[in-house]
Amino acid sequence: MASDYIPPVDDYAFLFGEAFGLDLVTRGTGGAFSADDATEIIAGAGEFAASVLAPLETVGDREGARLADGQVRLPDGFAEAYRAFVEAGWVTAEAPETAGGDGLPGSIRAGLGELWNGSNAAFALCWLLTAGQIHALDAVASDEIRETYLTKLVSGQWTGTMNLTEPDAGTDLGAIRTMATPRDDGSWGVSGQKIFITWGDHDVAENIVHLVLARTPDAPAGAKGLSLFVVPKLLPEADGTPGERNAVTTVAIEHKLGIHGSPTCVLAYEDATGHLVGEVGGGLAGMFVMMNSARAGMGFQATGISDRAYQQAAAYAAGRLQGPVMDRPAGAPIAEHPDVRRLLLSMQSRIFAMRALGVYLGDLFDRADTDGTGTLAEFLVPVLKGWATEDAVAITSDAIQVHGGMGFIEETGVAQHYRDARIMPIYEGTTAIQSNDLIGRKVIRDGGATAEALFAEIESTVESLRGFGDVVATRTADRLERAVAAARAATTSLLGFGQTRDAYGVSVPYLMLLGTLAGGWMHALAVVAVLGHETSDATDAARLVSADFYGAHHLPRVHMLAETVAAGEVA
Amino acid sequence: MASDYIPPVDDYAFLFGEAFGLDLVTRGTGGAFSADDATEIIAGAGEFAASVLAPLETVGDREGARLADGQVRLPDGFAEAYRAFVEAGWVTAEAPETAGGDGLPGSIRAGLGELWNGSNAAFALCWLLTAGQIHALDAVASDEIRETYLTKLVSGQWTGTMNLTEPDAGTDLGAIRTMATPRDDGSWGVSGQKIFITWGDHDVAENIVHLVLARTPDAPAGAKGLSLFVVPKLLPEADGTPGERNAVTTVAIEHKLGIHGSPTCVLAYEDATGHLVGEVGGGLAGMFVMMNSARAGMGFQATGISDRAYQQAAAYAAGRLQGPVMDRPAGAPIAEHPDVRRLLLSMQSRIFAMRALGVYLGDLFDRADTDGTGTLAEFLVPVLKGWATEDAVAITSDAIQVHGGMGFIEETGVAQHYRDARIMPIYEGTTAIQSNDLIGRKVIRDGGATAEALFAEIESTVESLRGFGDVVATRTADRLERAVAAARAATTSLLGFGQTRDAYGVSVPYLMLLGTLAGGWMHALAVVAVLGHETSDATDAARLVSADFYGAHHLPRVHMLAETVAAGEVA
Repeated sequence: MASDYIPPVDDYAFLFGEAFGLDLVTRGTGGAFSADDATEIIAGAGEFAASVLAPLETVGDREGARLADGQVRLPDGFAEAYRAFVEAGWVTAEAPETAGGDGLPGSIRAGLGELWNGSNAAFALCWLLTAGQIHALDAVASDEIRETYLTKLVSGQWTGTMNLTEPDAGTDLGAIRTMATPRDDGSWGVSGQKIFITWGDHDVAENIVHLVLARTPDAPAGAKGLSLFVVPKLLPEADGTPGERNAVTTVAIEHKLGIHGSPTCVLAYEDATGHLVGEVGGGLAGMFVMMNSARAGMGFQATGISDRAYQQAAAYAAGRLQGPVMDRPAGAPIAEHPDVRRLLLSMQSRIFAMRALGVYLGDLFDRADTDGTGTLAEFLVPVLKGWATEDAVAITSDAIQVHGGMGFIEETGVAQHYRDARIMPIYEGTTAIQSNDLIGRKVIRDGGATAEALFAEIESTVESLRGFGDVVATRTADRLERAVAAARAATTSLLGFGQTRDAYGVSVPYLMLLGTLAGGWMHALAVVAVLGHETSDATDAARLVSADFYGAHHLPRVHMLAETVAAGEVA
Repeated sequence: MASDYIPPVDDYAFLFGEAFGLDLVTRGTGGAFSADDATEIIAGAGEFAASVLAPLETVGDREGARLADGQVRLPDGFAEAYRAFVEAGWVTAEAPETAGGDGLPGSIRAGLGELWNGSNAAFALCWLLTAGQIHALDAVASDEIRETYLTKLVSGQWTGTMNLTEPDAGTDLGAIRTMATPRDDGSWGVSGQKIFITWGDHDVAENIVHLVLARTPDAPAGAKGLSLFVVPKLLPEADGTPGERNAVTTVAIEHKLGIHGSPTCVLAYEDATGHLVGEVGGGLAGMFVMMNSARAGMGFQATGISDRAYQQAAAYAAGRLQGPVMDRPAGAPIAEHPDVRRLLLSMQSRIFAMRALGVYLGDLFDRADTDGTGTLAEFLVPVLKGWATEDAVAITSDAIQVHGGMGFIEETGVAQHYRDARIMPIYEGTTAIQSNDLIGRKVIRDGGATAEALFAEIESTVESLRGFGDVVATRTADRLERAVAAARAATTSLLGFGQTRDAYGVSVPYLMLLGTLAGGWMHALAVVAVLGHETSDATDAARLVSADFYGAHHLPRVHMLAETVAAGEVA
């Protein structure tokens, strides 16, 4: 079974208060929260995650969600955990103030996202989707819908889902065929089938609000003909409490490779009662708000699942004795074997990189209105989502490798993370969808200006590193400087290709290049922060080793990928 | 469920007859077999694999092996398939002539290994282990054991297993505690527990021969105190037929991430009757023969599982329509989307590389006695095993990605390959064990001489490429030349480290570097062969694209890894 979960509170304290050269939370919230506040919140959430959510991860995997008599049931404990999650205030805490929530800033929400997912990714998906819907409704819904639905989502009484995919409309939303027909009373009758609906039905909360993309009569073909509707599982009574059942049926739940504790539903809408959200034909706008939130959330999920797998591997390797270890005293555990140590550092250094980039992204969103950081934030959403989720697959694979043969045995529990992780590069937009968004809308469209702004930021960190005269700092600076040059060359290649197959044939390598580079930058910032300490402790030393390892083992991938990008599509 | 299986007969015809610039089978067998013979054998085996073995792959995964009343049972169809496999002569065909088999050469056996594993890896493991035991007994067993056991293995009546691992002795064989005590009648009483015994019990053949590493009384500590024993499941009667049950019990079978159709057993030996194989204290020698065979076999398994996953992804992508495709006519399937095309080419080009290296390795073994190619063969065994199995994990992951959300649904069948593949970098020696063998015994010990001989071979192919003046040939030559230079630099780094943690901390990156480079060489040879054609067809064009893709997307990894190797252990 999965190991205990140890919330990475120290890393968050470092990221909030030090890594970026200042108290990032104070800056990002205009003083509403400080790094110390943020760390305290993370510590509290970590305690909840470790004690309430983590123990349910294994049962979620083994028993999974079940469908019986048209109702999905979660394993024992899930409903209680969800109630506790709401009662502890975590739902309201993360919801924006405009929607009646506490409005925790993005930097802290990045950490919370990791904790919920690290302790129990299948459980966390329920809130991840609900949070996305809260953001979407907060952005585009009418007062009536806010009153009837949004308040219930923010209070945690109801949960939300995201209904895009249909059997013949996955990546291509324009092919959606679900129809919504206006009724005399102002409501709409929604009919069609939606698939892959995460937490599409369950028994952990009293009602479910489906946010559904559908086509209206006489709407133009393609994505422009789509509108957005809320369709509740149970129709609200006049007093707002859930009443009779709406015409939405859970036809089936999927038998999946992983995240068994998250019910993935096939939903049939048969003239179900829905309400329009936003304008007719403006469905994608609201859905993109939700997707953007969910995509950033995937970055945090990738960090969480990766760290849980890492923790399990590290604990196993620290406790397992197997033969003598080179240059180590007798009785040294396998964690000290050169290659096991390599695997553990490989995992840990990538996890730190994605964790840090998650906090940075949250901070950019926090400062979008004051510091104009929104463009860079939007730029980094697909980078974090694509890169972190792809790397999470590799990291959870490494966690199995550390266990040797035991890793392949399901009872060990580490294989679950490997199975769970595999969906991340697919849902909320595949890596190709992320990379197409990145190069099409965020690199080529602005002539590489945002990319160049990022490179300039990284170069200023290179300068800071050079000021120390420290050997690791200098090595890190040299590597990062070369990596930025390679990234610039790759960007130039891409801009030269323009909107052609040559660009789209290497969009994923380009995305991975930027993610890998951004990870190296995060480590470089950590080096600067650590070397600024008057005295250095074991944690500081470990941060330098981690950065140095990332520079030797991961950052060189930038050069490989730059060569690939330069080649364009191979035809 | 898993897709149909299409045996890659054309690729083998190309590899046997053309890719290496001559009829490699004729050269390797002194004319006993030609490339045409070999292709015919592959075609016949492919027909068997596709019609008999492939249809059982899904049921093997879903039902898996079960243990009831001390007996392991395979799903319906497995016993019949095994009988058909024997009756068709495939067991005897692959067994060496010295052991009474047909003695097919290594080049052809590489192809057969891929076919058995591509069609049904769980099933193929039974024969893979039996073949290894045949080689071990053929090398070291007495006439009596050859007569009683080896003949039954070669006839296919009995199957063989490999008993090394114990709960506290995995990678560290020196920790083995199973005891063998001599009896007055010349037999030995074997007592202990062995775990992770592949096909350790089953109902598909009439008897099972366990090859067991055990410690003898007063034996020195560590690996030098180990001896090898055959311990049958059923004790042979005087006439050689299986008689009463030996004191070997199947205590449990493992619940695994993948290869469910291959029973992984915990075996308890309680004064079971065994017979010494070879000398007392000489157990490792015989076991290494078996392991070498099994490790090369893993390379073929990696190719097979990868290709099956690729075939399924390619078939799905060719049949799935989803939105307009850039620069392609309406109705183009998703296979034409730039990034799906990238994924498919990425998989296919790596599979060709490992398939070709497998044939080359088999050929090197075929010519070991005549051409002195044994040293290079031994050098390449850990390279192929380590590199191909690690890449197979990535390739099966890509196969899921091509499917999008459908890839995560178990019924689609592609997830099985991803689950099955994950054990390959672990069993028969983890990638770290392969890389330690490689750098310790095969690079540092001979001062890099064998590595240099390989590099020189590759450089002669670079020269051939330059003779064409063709754009792909020139690009391939340039890339390969740079890659060889990087590999040389990495080897120099490694030799400079010597037998230190700096070397062992980067042994896996070094192994992956050599595997990636060797793969590039295989593609370069294919380019030379194809450009030698007077007229070029679609297959030729596809081979050039595949080589060019490998050069742009995979070969650059050599430079990344060389940088990692140069850094030594990060401490």
